[in-house]
Amino acid sequence: MAENTQNPDKASENIVYIGKKPTMNYVLAVVTQFNNGMNEVILKARGNAISKAVDVKEIVTNKFMPDLKLKNISTSSEELTNEDGTRSKVSAIQILLCK
Amino acid sequence: MAENTQNPDKASENIVYIGKKPTMNYVLAVVTQFNNGMNEVILKARGNAISKAVDVKEIVTNKFMPDLKLKNISTSSEELTNEDGTRSKVSAIQILLCK
Repeated sequence: MAENTQNPDKASENIVYIGKKPTMNYVLAVVTQFNNGMNEVILKARGNAISKAVDVKEIVTNKFMPDLKLKNISTSSEELTNEDGTRSKVSAIQILLCK
Repeated sequence: MAENTQNPDKASENIVYIGKKPTMNYVLAVVTQFNNGMNEVILKARGNAISKAVDVKEIVTNKFMPDLKLKNISTSSEELTNEDGTRSKVSAIQILLCK
């Protein structure tokens, strides 16, 4: 599961961070997590990747694992430091799927 | 994907469709709805606009109306007919805010 490398310090195994890779990479990551015995998987995304996170959730639950339940969706704001030192806020989403 | 014209038949007044306009336009639309006496406002978005819908929700609740409550977030898949007649699925989000 290569996705988890973004946040090595809080690398909970059942979190899939949605980034710039193709959507199906993340779909596969989620399905793999459940097939490896996880009962819950959390999708996390920020900024423009939020749309992709919803795509992943829809594809996983509609095409691959129709028995999954959506336990919770929450949103938040996170503050990022840009390369030039300025700070900006970015929205984030957390989607909790469970068996 | 044109935005506001999608559902002319169920054009409930308290629905704000998020499209390609600047984020603050939609923030203003939501705040105006509540100031006009609405107790609930629904944000709806499809595809890439989903990220913007979350931005709108975060800006409204963090900056303008901190007393608002998030009542529900749900996602779905909708099928669109493209200009060339093919059909494709697109994810959608509905965010229900209430006073």
